[in-house]
Amino acid sequence: MRYAPLTQAIQGETVDAWDIHFKATSLKEKDDSVIVLSIGDPDFDTPSQVVDSAVAGLRNGDTHYVEIEGRDELREVIAASHQSRCGQEVSKDNVIMLAGAQNALFASSMCILAPGDEAIVLQPMYVTYEACIQLTGATLVPVAMDKHNDFCLDYAALENAITDKTKAIYFATPNNPSGLMLTQNELQFIADLAIKHDLWVVSDEVYSQTVFEGEHISIAGLPNMAERTITLNSLSKSHAMTGWRVGWAIGPTTLINHLSNLSLCMLYGLPGFVQQAAYTALTDPQALASSEHMRVTYQRRRDRLVSCFQQHQNLSCITPQASMFLLVNVSETGLTAQAFAESLFEQQKIGVLPATAFGECAADFIRISYVVEDSELEDACERIDRFMALLNANKQRA
Amino acid sequence: MRYAPLTQAIQGETVDAWDIHFKATSLKEKDDSVIVLSIGDPDFDTPSQVVDSAVAGLRNGDTHYVEIEGRDELREVIAASHQSRCGQEVSKDNVIMLAGAQNALFASSMCILAPGDEAIVLQPMYVTYEACIQLTGATLVPVAMDKHNDFCLDYAALENAITDKTKAIYFATPNNPSGLMLTQNELQFIADLAIKHDLWVVSDEVYSQTVFEGEHISIAGLPNMAERTITLNSLSKSHAMTGWRVGWAIGPTTLINHLSNLSLCMLYGLPGFVQQAAYTALTDPQALASSEHMRVTYQRRRDRLVSCFQQHQNLSCITPQASMFLLVNVSETGLTAQAFAESLFEQQKIGVLPATAFGECAADFIRISYVVEDSELEDACERIDRFMALLNANKQRA
Repeated sequence: MRYAPLTQAIQGETVDAWDIHFKATSLKEKDDSVIVLSIGDPDFDTPSQVVDSAVAGLRNGDTHYVEIEGRDELREVIAASHQSRCGQEVSKDNVIMLAGAQNALFASSMCILAPGDEAIVLQPMYVTYEACIQLTGATLVPVAMDKHNDFCLDYAALENAITDKTKAIYFATPNNPSGLMLTQNELQFIADLAIKHDLWVVSDEVYSQTVFEGEHISIAGLPNMAERTITLNSLSKSHAMTGWRVGWAIGPTTLINHLSNLSLCMLYGLPGFVQQAAYTALTDPQALASSEHMRVTYQRRRDRLVSCFQQHQNLSCITPQASMFLLVNVSETGLTAQAFAESLFEQQKIGVLPATAFGECAADFIRISYVVEDSELEDACERIDRFMALLNANKQRA
Repeated sequence: MRYAPLTQAIQGETVDAWDIHFKATSLKEKDDSVIVLSIGDPDFDTPSQVVDSAVAGLRNGDTHYVEIEGRDELREVIAASHQSRCGQEVSKDNVIMLAGAQNALFASSMCILAPGDEAIVLQPMYVTYEACIQLTGATLVPVAMDKHNDFCLDYAALENAITDKTKAIYFATPNNPSGLMLTQNELQFIADLAIKHDLWVVSDEVYSQTVFEGEHISIAGLPNMAERTITLNSLSKSHAMTGWRVGWAIGPTTLINHLSNLSLCMLYGLPGFVQQAAYTALTDPQALASSEHMRVTYQRRRDRLVSCFQQHQNLSCITPQASMFLLVNVSETGLTAQAFAESLFEQQKIGVLPATAFGECAADFIRISYVVEDSELEDACERIDRFMALLNANKQRA
């Protein structure tokens, strides 16, 4: 049968990177000593107040069609929160609820990109950006952050990547996999370019509620950026709600209207009981306290892992400012990231991801998620120590 | 800002038809005597066993990422049910869970249609088909059912509509808005054409569990059709689960793989607790009994409405074999469908839809949903009688 060319555009080649993750989760079912540090799914439960809210909605029959763009009260809370954090003046009419930030990334790309367009994405980048951009017929133009300089923005590389076909600049801040945030200067540079060349900016901020140090800045709040910025966010990470599929896009009202038309034929709205839960997540003091507890816990785990990696001379770890990930450069061990990850799994039963899938500039790195409890993380650190000791011993013998 | 041309393709012009519906639902909030017969949202609650199952999933922490294509046990049940109903041999690998049949229609269209393609749709058709097809860059080629012959297939019109650009034939059986089903002969004719011209067939069967008379036939079960048929279905109508957004596509494994790639970047899976609920809906005897109770109730309501309309000489009602809708031809009243619907709302506070939005061949008709309780339906019938009496009296005076 004849398929649309689009089906080729969504066949990512980065799937191999997940092999070790799949092996690890599969073995974990039989062998509890396996430690899975290869996925961005929080180990926390969704806060009970949020669950209670969904249950109440279900019990009260909130199971019928809802407004396509989401309920007013939920969009108002999101708008107010966004405005207070970044200063962009927005109302509910600048917000649409979608089935997770992933769905918002997909839908936003469909509304702004077309065949012949180029979309710049700062790398390292999350793996699904490729499909979301390519399925529109646009070309993804990767611009690598400077891996020799703690993944700072390569100003010249970004400026040089802009052509008369460029339609948008995409990035995630905080970044997955690096956990780093773009600075005020970096964002202003991007904003100036976007204004000068009349570009969209798509700012993926799903880790913005999980910040340990530094200030998270939304580019939408910079002068003259509101009209050209699409801010994506969700509850997946902040409230351990990955499986709920609830996120949103914030942007100019014309965009929101287009997204609403798209959602009408793509999704037909989010479940009402899920929206009730989302409202609780964003407003209930205890739910917010749970979210804050998660943030503090991630920070403690990050500190433990960073101190672990800092002990090993031939590993260099970039201390993440946010998120639930960190990158470790393994190139000085003499192993590729893939080989390092495979050996670590085979010898110590720890699953991590070679970061190759996130872009060439991350090829020397492995990505480690800290989504296990303290005791298991402690165990992981000890195994990593043993792994490195053995690796160095073998190296000296060789 | 510059938007993708796709945004034009999804700006349906059929939105006006919903004006009366929006007016009716808005007035209903203030005035309980308004009767809303303009939407396809069941008045039933989701069966309690299904709700209980979602609640259990939520309470047990089934709130994390799930398999993109849906859980094996759920897809197995759907495959088995489909196979037993239509004879097509399928396994879970032929099934993918998506966020409602609407999402499945959208995603399937993206995987099979491309710019330059033509997609034939039998009319009357549900309004979102237009956007789903057009957003791929393909052209929608409507083929009207024969409105002079109870909306039977116009064999010659269908055959004549096929060109060397035709890629697919879409239809819904049972149909929304007519509630009619395609016959064995009609489906075999479509199948022969599809095989001869190497076409996809997209069969939307969301009302296949709400059949009152006649046999529902899935075209996928006809010889040599499995490889080229995409069957769409959901729990929205059969189990009063419109707001849950749970549906699926059944098709060849290559298609399912493409849909899985698409879902990875579009949706990232359906909530686990929703999938648990769906499994219960399809397997729990009491949930199935509730679904059957709904079917019987819709049939009773249909009978009441048909008998109402049959009493009026200048109204002709097509008795639906299935669904929760019926079409009434109002042309002999001398009013357009829009004018009839507006007058009925203004004079009797009953909201119905002019069926114009469903295609030119339905322009003489209004669509009535029977999603209100017996007493309210009785009231509606009496108001329609009064409305017709007044209309005829005014006509005689004129």
